[in-house]
Amino acid sequence: MSASEKAARFISVLPHCGVLGMSVEYADSEKLILKLPYQSQIVGNPENGVVAGGSLTTLMDTACGTAVFIAFSDHEICPTLDLRMDYHTSARPGSDLMGEAWVERISNNVVFTRGRIYQEGSDEIIATCTANFMRIGKHIGGQG
Amino acid sequence: MSASEKAARFISVLPHCGVLGMSVEYADSEKLILKLPYQSQIVGNPENGVVAGGSLTTLMDTACGTAVFIAFSDHEICPTLDLRMDYHTSARPGSDLMGEAWVERISNNVVFTRGRIYQEGSDEIIATCTANFMRIGKHIGGQG
Amino acid sequence: MSASEKAARFISVLPHCGVLGMSVEYADSEKLILKLPYQSQIVGNPENGVVAGGSLTTLMDTACGTAVFIAFSDHEICPTLDLRMDYHTSARPGSDLMGEAWVERISNNVVFTRGRIYQEGSDEIIATCTANFMRIGKHIGGQG
Amino acid sequence: MSASEKAARFISVLPHCGVLGMSVEYADSEKLILKLPYQSQIVGNPENGVVAGGSLTTLMDTACGTAVFIAFSDHEICPTLDLRMDYHTSARPGSDLMGEAWVERISNNVVFTRGRIYQEGSDEIIATCTANFMRIGKHIGGQG
Repeated sequence: MSASEKAARFISVLPHCGVLGMSVEYADSEKLILKLPYQSQIVGNPENGVVAGGSLTTLMDTACGTAVFIAFSDHEICPTLDLRMDYHTSARPGSDLMGEAWVERISNNVVFTRGRIYQEGSDEIIATCTANFMRIGKHIGGQG
Repeated sequence: MSASEKAARFISVLPHCGVLGMSVEYADSEKLILKLPYQSQIVGNPENGVVAGGSLTTLMDTACGTAVFIAFSDHEICPTLDLRMDYHTSARPGSDLMGEAWVERISNNVVFTRGRIYQEGSDEIIATCTANFMRIGKHIGGQG
Repeated sequence: MSASEKAARFISVLPHCGVLGMSVEYADSEKLILKLPYQSQIVGNPENGVVAGGSLTTLMDTACGTAVFIAFSDHEICPTLDLRMDYHTSARPGSDLMGEAWVERISNNVVFTRGRIYQEGSDEIIATCTANFMRIGKHIGGQG
Repeated sequence: MSASEKAARFISVLPHCGVLGMSVEYADSEKLILKLPYQSQIVGNPENGVVAGGSLTTLMDTACGTAVFIAFSDHEICPTLDLRMDYHTSARPGSDLMGEAWVERISNNVVFTRGRIYQEGSDEIIATCTANFMRIGKHIGGQG
Protein backbone atom coordinates (compact mmCIF):
# COMPACT_ATOMS: atom_id res chain seq x y z
CA MET A 1 0.00 0.00 0.00
CA SER A 2 1.36 3.47 -0.86
CA ALA A 3 1.80 6.18 1.77
CA SER A 4 -1.11 7.99 0.17
CA GLU A 5 -3.42 4.94 0.38
CA LYS A 6 -2.36 4.30 3.98
CA ALA A 7 -3.12 7.91 4.89
CA ALA A 8 -6.50 7.82 3.17
CA ARG A 9 -7.41 4.61 4.96
CA PHE A 10 -6.34 6.03 8.32
CA ILE A 11 -8.48 9.16 8.08
CA SER A 12 -11.43 7.25 6.59
CA VAL A 13 -12.15 5.65 9.99
CA LEU A 14 -12.01 8.94 11.91
CA PRO A 15 -15.57 10.28 12.14
CA HIS A 16 -14.57 13.95 12.42
CA CYS A 17 -12.59 13.70 9.16
CA GLY A 18 -15.75 12.62 7.39
CA VAL A 19 -17.84 15.34 9.01
CA LEU A 20 -15.29 18.00 8.03
CA GLY A 21 -14.55 16.57 4.59
CA MET A 22 -10.80 16.22 5.15
CA SER A 23 -8.87 14.50 2.39
CA VAL A 24 -5.30 13.46 1.64
CA GLU A 25 -3.74 16.02 -0.70
CA TYR A 26 -0.30 14.42 -0.77
CA ALA A 27 1.65 11.73 1.07
CA ASP A 28 5.02 10.08 0.75
CA SER A 29 7.39 8.56 3.29
CA GLU A 30 8.72 12.03 4.22
CA LYS A 31 5.63 14.18 4.60
CA LEU A 32 1.87 14.37 4.41
CA ILE A 33 -0.58 17.08 3.41
CA LEU A 34 -4.24 17.00 4.45
CA LYS A 35 -6.81 19.37 2.99
CA LEU A 36 -9.59 20.89 5.09
CA PRO A 37 -12.18 22.59 2.84
CA TYR A 38 -13.43 26.01 3.87
CA GLN A 39 -17.01 25.71 5.16
CA SER A 40 -19.30 27.35 7.71
CA GLN A 41 -18.67 24.54 10.18
CA ILE A 42 -15.06 25.57 10.78
CA VAL A 43 -15.71 29.29 11.22
CA GLY A 44 -14.94 30.80 14.63
CA ASN A 45 -16.03 34.37 13.99
CA PRO A 46 -19.35 34.48 12.11
CA GLU A 47 -19.02 38.24 11.58
CA ASN A 48 -15.97 37.99 9.34
CA GLY A 49 -15.84 34.29 8.43
CA VAL A 50 -12.44 33.72 10.03
CA VAL A 51 -11.68 30.06 10.80
CA ALA A 52 -11.71 28.97 14.48
CA GLY A 53 -8.43 28.20 16.19
CA GLY A 54 -9.92 24.84 17.13
CA SER A 55 -10.37 23.93 13.47
CA LEU A 56 -6.69 24.57 12.84
CA THR A 57 -5.82 22.45 15.87
CA THR A 58 -8.02 19.59 14.67
CA LEU A 59 -6.33 19.72 11.26
CA MET A 60 -2.83 19.64 12.78
CA ASP A 61 -3.68 16.95 15.33
CA THR A 62 -5.06 14.75 12.56
CA ALA A 63 -2.18 15.44 10.15
CA CYS A 64 0.52 14.70 12.75
CA GLY A 65 -1.27 11.51 13.85
CA THR A 66 -1.55 10.37 10.24
CA ALA A 67 2.15 11.13 9.63
CA VAL A 68 2.99 8.86 12.58
CA PHE A 69 0.77 6.11 11.21
CA ILE A 70 2.38 6.08 7.76
CA ALA A 71 5.88 6.21 9.27
CA PHE A 72 5.56 2.61 10.50
CA SER A 73 5.34 -0.39 8.19
CA ASP A 74 3.33 -2.32 10.78
CA HIS A 75 0.46 -1.02 12.89
CA GLU A 76 1.83 0.57 15.98
CA ILE A 77 -0.45 2.22 18.51
CA CYS A 78 0.90 5.68 19.30
CA PRO A 79 -1.48 7.84 21.32
CA THR A 80 -0.83 11.60 21.38
CA LEU A 81 1.15 12.54 24.47
CA ASP A 82 1.14 16.30 24.00
CA LEU A 83 0.70 18.95 21.35
CA ARG A 84 1.52 22.63 20.99
CA MET A 85 -0.08 25.00 18.50
CA ASP A 86 1.21 28.46 17.59
CA TYR A 87 -1.23 30.64 15.67
CA HIS A 88 0.72 33.06 13.47
CA THR A 89 -2.06 34.84 11.62
CA SER A 90 -5.72 34.56 10.64
CA ALA A 91 -6.63 32.33 7.72
CA ARG A 92 -8.25 34.09 4.75
CA PRO A 93 -12.02 33.39 4.72
CA GLY A 94 -13.15 31.32 1.77
CA SER A 95 -9.88 29.53 1.15
CA ASP A 96 -9.16 25.84 1.85
CA LEU A 97 -6.58 24.95 4.48
CA MET A 98 -3.58 22.69 3.86
CA GLY A 99 -2.12 20.89 6.86
CA GLU A 100 1.40 19.58 6.29
CA ALA A 101 2.99 17.23 8.85
CA TRP A 102 6.16 15.18 9.12
CA VAL A 103 8.00 12.99 11.60
CA GLU A 104 11.13 14.62 13.01
CA ARG A 105 12.45 11.65 14.96
CA ILE A 106 11.44 8.19 16.11
CA SER A 107 13.11 7.24 19.39
CA ASN A 108 12.59 4.05 21.38
CA ASN A 109 9.67 5.54 23.27
CA VAL A 110 8.45 8.60 21.44
CA VAL A 111 7.63 9.82 17.91
CA PHE A 112 8.37 13.57 17.53
CA THR A 113 6.36 15.38 14.84
CA ARG A 114 6.00 18.86 13.40
CA GLY A 115 3.38 20.48 11.23
CA ARG A 116 2.22 23.73 9.67
CA ILE A 117 -0.86 25.14 7.99
CA TYR A 118 -1.03 27.31 4.89
CA GLN A 119 -3.62 28.10 2.24
CA GLU A 120 -3.72 27.36 -1.45
CA GLY A 121 -1.81 29.84 -3.53
CA SER A 122 0.18 31.30 -0.65
CA ASP A 123 3.39 30.57 1.23
CA GLU A 124 2.21 32.33 4.36
CA ILE A 125 2.18 30.11 7.44
CA ILE A 126 -1.12 30.32 9.33
CA ALA A 127 -0.14 28.12 12.27
CA THR A 128 2.56 25.67 13.34
CA CYS A 129 2.40 22.58 15.51
CA THR A 130 4.68 20.33 17.57
CA ALA A 131 3.22 17.01 18.73
CA ASN A 132 4.74 14.01 20.51
CA PHE A 133 3.30 10.50 20.41
CA MET A 134 4.00 7.56 22.76
CA ARG A 135 5.14 4.24 21.35
CA ILE A 136 3.22 1.90 23.60
CA GLY A 137 3.58 -1.27 21.56
CA LYS A 138 2.56 -2.99 18.41
CA HIS A 139 -1.03 -3.56 17.47
CA ILE A 140 -2.00 -7.24 17.58
CA GLY A 141 -5.53 -7.15 16.37
CA GLY A 142 -7.57 -9.62 14.34
CA GLN A 143 -9.01 -7.15 11.89
CA GLY A 144 -6.81 -4.15 12.78
CA MET B 1 -26.12 39.07 31.80
CA SER B 2 -24.79 36.29 34.05
CA ALA B 3 -21.51 34.52 33.33
CA SER B 4 -23.54 31.47 32.39
CA GLU B 5 -25.70 33.39 29.91
CA LYS B 6 -22.62 35.07 28.42
CA ALA B 7 -20.92 31.71 27.97
CA ALA B 8 -24.02 30.17 26.38
CA ARG B 9 -24.31 33.08 23.98
CA PHE B 10 -20.63 32.85 23.07
CA ILE B 11 -20.72 29.17 22.15
CA SER B 12 -24.10 29.49 20.39
CA VAL B 13 -22.42 31.31 17.48
CA LEU B 14 -19.62 28.76 17.07
CA PRO B 15 -20.77 26.24 14.44
CA HIS B 16 -18.64 23.35 15.76
CA CYS B 17 -20.24 23.69 19.20
CA GLY B 18 -23.63 23.13 17.63
CA VAL B 19 -22.41 20.20 15.56
CA LEU B 20 -20.86 18.57 18.63
CA GLY B 21 -23.71 19.48 21.01
CA MET B 22 -21.48 21.31 23.50
CA SER B 23 -23.28 23.06 26.34
CA VAL B 24 -22.44 25.22 29.35
CA GLU B 25 -22.51 23.04 32.46
CA TYR B 26 -21.41 25.78 34.85
CA ALA B 27 -20.03 29.30 34.71
CA ASP B 28 -19.17 32.01 37.19
CA SER B 29 -16.58 34.78 37.21
CA GLU B 30 -13.88 32.32 38.34
CA LYS B 31 -14.34 29.27 36.13
CA LEU B 32 -16.34 27.66 33.38
CA ILE B 33 -17.32 24.07 32.64
CA LEU B 34 -18.41 22.96 29.16
CA LYS B 35 -19.95 19.55 28.51
CA LEU B 36 -19.15 17.54 25.38
CA PRO B 37 -21.57 14.58 25.06
CA TYR B 38 -20.11 11.22 24.13
CA GLN B 39 -21.02 10.37 20.52
CA SER B 40 -19.60 8.54 17.53
CA GLN B 41 -18.41 11.81 15.99
CA ILE B 42 -15.73 12.36 18.62
CA VAL B 43 -14.33 8.82 18.58
CA GLY B 44 -10.74 8.41 17.41
CA ASN B 45 -10.42 4.65 17.66
CA PRO B 46 -13.51 2.92 16.25
CA GLU B 47 -12.33 -0.47 17.54
CA ASN B 48 -12.62 0.46 21.20
CA GLY B 49 -14.67 3.68 21.13
CA VAL B 50 -11.93 5.81 22.68
CA VAL B 51 -12.32 9.56 22.10
CA ALA B 52 -9.89 11.25 19.64
CA GLY B 53 -7.19 13.53 20.99
CA GLY B 54 -8.52 16.17 18.61
CA SER B 55 -11.91 16.12 20.31
CA LEU B 56 -10.28 16.80 23.65
CA THR B 57 -8.31 19.64 22.09
CA THR B 58 -11.44 21.17 20.56
CA LEU B 59 -13.17 21.02 23.96
CA MET B 60 -10.25 22.73 25.72
CA ASP B 61 -9.71 25.33 23.01
CA THR B 62 -13.40 26.26 23.18
CA ALA B 63 -13.52 26.26 26.99
CA CYS B 64 -10.42 28.44 27.36
CA GLY B 65 -11.69 30.87 24.71
CA THR B 66 -15.07 31.11 26.45
CA ALA B 67 -13.37 31.70 29.82
CA VAL B 68 -11.52 34.63 28.26
CA PHE B 69 -14.76 36.01 26.83
CA ILE B 70 -16.61 35.99 30.15
CA ALA B 71 -13.62 37.51 31.97
CA PHE B 72 -14.19 40.88 30.29
CA SER B 73 -17.22 43.08 30.93
CA ASP B 74 -16.95 44.58 27.45
CA HIS B 75 -16.30 42.73 24.20
CA GLU B 76 -12.59 42.37 23.68
CA ILE B 77 -11.18 40.49 20.72
CA CYS B 78 -8.58 38.03 21.97
CA PRO B 79 -7.41 35.55 19.32
CA THR B 80 -5.61 32.42 20.53
CA LEU B 81 -1.85 32.92 20.38
CA ASP B 82 -0.79 29.41 21.38
CA LEU B 83 -2.07 26.34 23.15
CA ARG B 84 -0.53 23.24 24.73
CA MET B 85 -2.39 20.01 25.43
CA ASP B 86 -1.11 17.19 27.66
CA TYR B 87 -3.02 13.93 27.36
CA HIS B 88 -2.81 12.05 30.66
CA THR B 89 -5.00 9.03 29.96
CA SER B 90 -7.71 7.71 27.68
CA ALA B 91 -11.28 8.81 28.32
CA ARG B 92 -13.74 6.02 29.20
CA PRO B 93 -15.91 5.24 26.17
CA GLY B 94 -19.58 6.11 26.65
CA SER B 95 -19.08 8.85 29.20
CA ASP B 96 -19.56 12.59 28.63
CA LEU B 97 -16.56 14.89 28.87
CA MET B 98 -16.36 17.94 31.13
CA GLY B 99 -13.99 20.71 30.09
CA GLU B 100 -13.13 23.13 32.89
CA ALA B 101 -11.24 26.34 32.14
CA TRP B 102 -10.18 29.44 34.01
CA VAL B 103 -8.16 32.60 33.53
CA GLU B 104 -4.86 32.59 35.44
CA ARG B 105 -3.79 36.14 34.70
CA ILE B 106 -4.73 39.12 32.54
CA SER B 107 -1.70 41.24 31.65
CA ASN B 108 -1.63 44.33 29.44
CA ASN B 109 -1.09 42.24 26.33
CA VAL B 110 -1.98 38.63 27.10
CA VAL B 111 -4.65 36.55 28.81
CA PHE B 112 -3.17 33.37 30.34
CA THR B 113 -5.58 30.46 30.78
CA ARG B 114 -5.57 26.88 32.03
CA GLY B 115 -7.96 23.99 31.63
CA ARG B 116 -8.54 20.31 32.33
CA ILE B 117 -10.87 17.56 31.22
CA TYR B 118 -12.52 14.93 33.38
CA GLN B 119 -15.59 12.72 33.12
CA GLU B 120 -18.78 12.64 35.12
CA GLY B 121 -18.48 10.71 38.35
CA SER B 122 -14.69 10.70 38.41
CA ASP B 123 -11.88 12.94 39.64
CA GLU B 124 -9.40 11.51 37.16
CA ILE B 125 -7.86 14.11 34.87
CA ILE B 126 -7.98 13.04 31.20
CA ALA B 127 -6.05 15.97 29.77
CA THR B 128 -4.78 19.40 30.74
CA CYS B 129 -4.35 22.58 28.71
CA THR B 130 -2.45 25.86 28.78
CA ALA B 131 -3.54 28.54 26.31
CA ASN B 132 -2.54 32.16 25.83
CA PHE B 133 -4.68 34.78 24.11
CA MET B 134 -3.61 38.16 22.65
CA ARG B 135 -5.38 41.33 23.73
CA ILE B 136 -5.50 43.17 20.42
CA GLY B 137 -8.12 45.76 21.33
CA LYS B 138 -11.76 46.32 22.04
CA HIS B 139 -14.49 45.27 19.68
CA ILE B 140 -16.29 48.23 18.11
CA GLY B 141 -18.99 46.54 16.11
CA GLY B 142 -22.54 47.51 15.25
CA GLN B 143 -24.27 44.38 16.43
CA GLY B 144 -21.29 42.75 18.21
CA MET C 1 15.33 9.33 53.97
CA SER C 2 12.80 12.17 54.11
CA ALA C 3 11.55 13.89 50.92
CA SER C 4 13.53 16.93 51.95
CA GLU C 5 16.77 14.95 52.36
CA LYS C 6 16.19 13.16 49.05
CA ALA C 7 15.64 16.48 47.29
CA ALA C 8 18.74 18.04 48.86
CA ARG C 9 20.83 15.04 47.82
CA PHE C 10 19.46 15.16 44.27
CA ILE C 11 20.33 18.81 43.69
CA SER C 12 23.71 18.49 45.45
CA VAL C 13 25.08 16.53 42.48
CA LEU C 14 23.87 19.02 39.86
CA PRO C 15 26.72 21.47 39.20
CA HIS C 16 24.47 24.35 38.12
CA CYS C 17 22.57 24.17 41.42
CA GLY C 18 25.82 24.73 43.28
CA VAL C 19 26.87 27.56 40.99
CA LEU C 20 23.50 29.28 41.43
CA GLY C 21 23.17 28.51 45.15
CA MET C 22 19.82 26.73 44.81
CA SER C 23 18.51 25.11 48.00
CA VAL C 24 15.52 23.05 49.10
CA GLU C 25 13.07 25.35 50.86
CA TYR C 26 10.42 22.67 51.44
CA ALA C 27 9.66 19.12 50.34
CA ASP C 28 7.09 16.49 51.17
CA SER C 29 5.54 13.68 49.17
CA GLU C 30 3.10 16.11 47.53
CA LYS C 31 5.23 19.09 46.51
CA LEU C 32 8.66 20.64 46.49
CA ILE C 33 9.91 24.22 46.76
CA LEU C 34 13.39 25.22 45.60
CA LYS C 35 14.87 28.65 46.38
CA LEU C 36 17.02 30.51 43.86
CA PRO C 37 18.72 33.50 45.55
CA TYR C 38 18.70 36.81 43.71
CA GLN C 39 22.20 37.53 42.36
CA SER C 40 23.86 39.26 39.43
CA GLN C 41 24.38 35.92 37.69
CA ILE C 42 20.66 35.42 37.01
CA VAL C 43 19.95 38.92 35.72
CA GLY C 44 18.86 39.24 32.10
CA ASN C 45 18.54 43.02 31.87
CA PRO C 46 21.50 44.72 33.53
CA GLU C 47 19.84 48.14 33.20
CA ASN C 48 17.01 47.35 35.57
CA GLY C 49 18.17 44.15 37.30
CA VAL C 50 15.28 42.03 36.03
CA VAL C 51 15.90 38.27 36.13
CA ALA C 52 16.49 36.46 32.79
CA GLY C 53 13.79 34.18 31.42
CA GLY C 54 16.44 31.47 31.22
CA SER C 55 17.02 31.64 34.97
CA LEU C 56 13.32 31.05 35.59
CA THR C 57 13.40 28.11 33.18
CA THR C 58 16.44 26.59 34.90
CA LEU C 59 14.66 26.88 38.26
CA MET C 60 11.51 25.19 36.94
CA ASP C 61 13.37 22.48 35.05
CA THR C 62 15.33 21.63 38.19
CA ALA C 63 12.29 21.77 40.48
CA CYS C 64 10.15 19.54 38.24
CA GLY C 65 13.01 17.04 37.84
CA THR C 66 13.52 16.93 41.59
CA ALA C 67 9.78 16.44 42.17
CA VAL C 68 9.94 13.41 39.85
CA PHE C 69 12.95 12.02 41.72
CA ILE C 70 11.29 12.21 45.15
CA ALA C 71 8.05 10.71 43.80
CA PHE C 72 9.69 7.29 43.42
CA SER C 73 10.86 5.16 46.33
CA ASP C 74 13.53 3.54 44.15
CA HIS C 75 15.84 5.26 41.70
CA GLU C 76 14.15 5.55 38.36
CA ILE C 77 15.80 7.29 35.43
CA CYS C 78 13.33 9.75 33.94
CA PRO C 79 14.85 12.12 31.38
CA THR C 80 12.89 15.26 30.49
CA LEU C 81 10.84 14.71 27.35
CA ASP C 82 9.48 18.22 26.94
CA LEU C 83 8.82 21.38 28.90
CA ARG C 84 6.71 24.50 28.47
CA MET C 85 7.25 27.77 30.27
CA ASP C 86 4.76 30.64 30.42
CA TYR C 87 6.17 33.93 31.70
CA HIS C 88 3.38 35.91 33.37
CA THR C 89 5.27 38.96 34.64
CA SER C 90 8.73 40.24 35.51
CA ALA C 91 10.24 39.22 38.81
CA ARG C 92 11.00 42.07 41.25
CA PRO C 93 14.73 42.78 41.26
CA GLY C 94 16.46 42.00 44.56
CA SER C 95 14.01 39.35 45.73
CA ASP C 96 14.70 35.59 45.90
CA LEU C 97 12.73 33.25 43.67
CA MET C 98 10.71 30.28 44.90
CA GLY C 99 10.13 27.44 42.46
CA GLU C 100 7.30 25.11 43.45
CA ALA C 101 6.77 21.84 41.58
CA TRP C 102 4.58 18.78 41.90
CA VAL C 103 3.74 15.57 40.08
CA GLU C 104 0.29 15.60 38.48
CA ARG C 105 0.23 12.00 37.29
CA ILE C 106 2.46 8.97 36.91
CA SER C 107 1.40 6.78 34.01
CA ASN C 108 3.12 3.63 32.77
CA ASN C 109 5.38 5.59 30.47
CA VAL C 110 5.33 9.22 31.52
CA VAL C 111 5.49 11.41 34.62
CA PHE C 112 3.45 14.61 34.19
CA THR C 113 4.54 17.57 36.31
CA ARG C 114 3.57 21.19 36.90
CA GLY C 115 5.34 24.10 38.52
CA ARG C 116 5.18 27.82 39.27
CA ILE C 117 7.47 30.57 40.45
CA TYR C 118 6.72 33.30 42.95
CA GLN C 119 8.75 35.54 45.24
CA GLU C 120 8.95 35.75 49.01
CA GLY C 121 6.18 37.80 50.55
CA SER C 122 3.93 37.73 47.49
CA ASP C 123 1.27 35.49 45.97
CA GLU C 124 1.87 36.79 42.46
CA ILE C 125 2.83 34.10 39.97
CA ILE C 126 5.92 35.05 37.95
CA ALA C 127 5.91 32.03 35.63
CA THR C 128 4.32 28.60 35.26
CA CYS C 129 5.67 25.37 33.84
CA THR C 130 4.45 22.05 32.44
CA ALA C 131 7.06 19.31 32.01
CA ASN C 132 6.80 15.65 31.03
CA PHE C 133 9.40 13.01 31.87
CA MET C 134 9.91 9.57 30.28
CA ARG C 135 9.98 6.47 32.46
CA ILE C 136 12.72 4.51 30.73
CA GLY C 137 13.44 1.99 33.47
CA LYS C 138 14.87 1.51 36.88
CA HIS C 139 18.37 2.50 37.78
CA ILE C 140 20.60 -0.49 38.53
CA GLY C 141 23.81 1.20 39.53
CA GLY C 142 26.49 0.28 42.07
CA GLN C 143 26.89 3.66 43.64
CA GLY C 144 23.71 5.30 42.28
CA MET D 1 27.00 46.88 13.00
CA SER D 2 26.86 43.37 11.50
CA ALA D 3 24.42 40.74 12.75
CA SER D 4 27.37 38.93 14.28
CA GLU D 5 28.59 42.00 16.17
CA LYS D 6 25.05 42.76 17.36
CA ALA D 7 24.66 39.20 18.63
CA ALA D 8 28.05 39.27 20.39
CA ARG D 9 27.16 42.55 22.06
CA PHE D 10 23.77 41.25 23.16
CA ILE D 11 25.14 38.16 24.89
CA SER D 12 28.09 40.07 26.39
CA VAL D 13 25.77 41.78 28.85
CA LEU D 14 24.04 38.57 29.98
CA PRO D 15 25.90 37.30 33.06
CA HIS D 16 25.01 33.63 32.53
CA CYS D 17 26.54 33.72 29.03
CA GLY D 18 29.84 34.78 30.54
CA VAL D 19 29.66 32.17 33.29
CA LEU D 20 28.95 29.43 30.73
CA GLY D 21 31.36 30.73 28.09
CA MET D 22 28.74 31.02 25.34
CA SER D 23 29.91 32.61 22.10
CA VAL D 24 28.49 33.57 18.72
CA GLU D 25 29.47 30.91 16.20
CA TYR D 26 27.56 32.45 13.29
CA ALA D 27 24.99 35.17 12.66
CA ASP D 28 23.32 36.74 9.67
CA SER D 29 19.92 38.31 9.14
CA GLU D 30 18.33 34.85 8.71
CA LYS D 31 19.77 32.77 11.53
CA LEU D 32 22.08 32.66 14.51
CA ILE D 33 24.27 29.94 16.01
CA LEU D 34 25.51 30.11 19.60
CA LYS D 35 28.16 27.73 20.94
CA LEU D 36 28.00 26.35 24.49
CA PRO D 37 31.30 24.61 25.36
CA TYR D 38 31.12 21.26 27.09
CA GLN D 39 32.11 21.66 30.77
CA SER D 40 31.34 20.14 34.15
CA GLN D 41 29.00 23.04 34.97
CA ILE D 42 26.40 21.97 32.41
CA VAL D 43 26.35 18.27 33.31
CA GLY D 44 23.10 16.86 34.67
CA ASN D 45 24.18 13.29 35.31
CA PRO D 46 27.61 13.18 36.96
CA GLU D 47 27.80 9.40 36.52
CA ASN D 48 27.91 9.52 32.73
CA GLY D 49 28.64 13.18 31.97
CA VAL D 50 25.37 13.76 30.08
CA VAL D 51 24.36 17.41 29.79
CA ALA D 52 21.40 18.64 31.88
CA GLY D 53 18.12 19.41 30.18
CA GLY D 54 18.28 22.82 31.82
CA SER D 55 21.54 23.61 30.04
CA LEU D 56 19.92 22.88 26.70
CA THR D 57 16.98 25.10 27.64
CA THR D 58 19.29 27.94 28.66
CA LEU D 59 21.10 27.66 25.32
CA MET D 60 17.85 27.76 23.33
CA ASP D 61 16.29 30.53 25.40
CA THR D 62 19.41 32.66 24.86
CA ALA D 63 19.70 31.84 21.15
CA CYS D 64 16.03 32.61 20.42
CA GLY D 65 16.22 35.87 22.39
CA THR D 66 19.35 36.90 20.50
CA ALA D 67 17.71 36.05 17.17
CA VAL D 68 14.86 38.40 18.09
CA PHE D 69 17.31 41.14 19.03
CA ILE D 70 19.20 41.03 15.73
CA ALA D 71 15.95 40.90 13.73
CA PHE D 72 15.20 44.54 14.57
CA SER D 73 17.26 47.47 13.33
CA ASP D 74 16.34 49.52 16.39
CA HIS D 75 16.23 48.36 20.00
CA GLU D 76 12.89 46.82 20.72
CA ILE D 77 12.11 45.30 24.10
CA CYS D 78 10.62 41.85 23.57
CA PRO D 79 10.32 39.78 26.76
CA THR D 80 9.82 36.03 26.38
CA LEU D 81 6.13 35.15 26.57
CA ASP D 82 6.44 31.37 26.44
CA LEU D 83 8.82 28.64 25.37
CA ARG D 84 8.58 24.93 24.59
CA MET D 85 11.50 22.52 24.57
CA ASP D 86 11.44 19.00 23.09
CA TYR D 87 14.38 16.81 24.06
CA HIS D 88 15.00 14.30 21.27
CA THR D 89 18.08 12.49 22.55
CA SER D 90 20.99 12.80 24.97
CA ALA D 91 23.94 14.95 23.95
CA ARG D 92 27.28 13.12 23.63
CA PRO D 93 29.46 13.89 26.67
CA GLY D 94 32.59 15.87 25.83
CA SER D 95 31.24 17.58 22.74
CA ASP D 96 30.31 21.27 22.44
CA LEU D 97 26.70 22.23 21.79
CA MET D 98 25.52 24.40 18.92
CA GLY D 99 22.26 26.27 19.39
CA GLU D 100 20.72 27.51 16.14
CA ALA D 101 17.75 29.92 16.23
CA TRP D 102 15.74 31.92 13.74
CA VAL D 103 12.69 34.15 13.57
CA GLU D 104 9.71 32.53 11.88
CA ARG D 105 7.41 35.54 11.82
CA ILE D 106 7.12 39.05 13.20
CA SER D 107 3.50 40.08 13.69
CA ASN D 108 2.22 43.35 15.15
CA ASN D 109 2.33 41.97 18.68
CA VAL D 110 4.47 38.86 18.72
CA VAL D 111 7.80 37.54 17.40
CA PHE D 112 7.62 33.78 16.70
CA THR D 113 10.96 31.92 16.85
CA ARG D 114 12.27 28.39 16.44
CA GLY D 115 15.54 26.74 17.40
CA ARG D 116 17.43 23.45 17.56
CA ILE D 117 20.54 22.04 19.15
CA TYR D 118 23.13 19.77 17.59
CA GLN D 119 26.76 18.94 18.21
CA GLU D 120 29.88 19.57 16.13
CA GLY D 121 30.39 16.99 13.44
CA SER D 122 26.86 15.60 13.54
CA ASP D 123 23.50 16.32 11.97
CA GLU D 124 21.58 14.69 14.79
CA ILE D 125 19.13 17.01 16.51
CA ILE D 126 19.49 16.91 20.31
CA ALA D 127 16.56 19.21 21.12
CA THR D 128 14.18 21.64 19.45
CA CYS D 129 12.54 24.80 20.72
CA THR D 130 9.59 27.08 19.98
CA ALA D 131 9.54 30.46 21.73
CA ASN D 132 7.29 33.48 21.41
CA PHE D 133 8.24 37.02 22.40
CA MET D 134 5.99 40.02 23.08
CA ARG D 135 6.55 43.27 21.24
CA ILE D 136 5.86 45.74 24.03
CA GLY D 137 7.40 48.82 22.45
CA LYS D 138 10.60 50.45 21.41
CA HIS D 139 13.45 51.01 23.79
CA ILE D 140 14.05 54.71 24.53
CA GLY D 141 17.04 54.56 26.83
CA GLY D 142 19.95 56.90 27.37
CA GLN D 143 22.70 54.32 27.40
CA GLY D 144 20.72 51.39 25.91
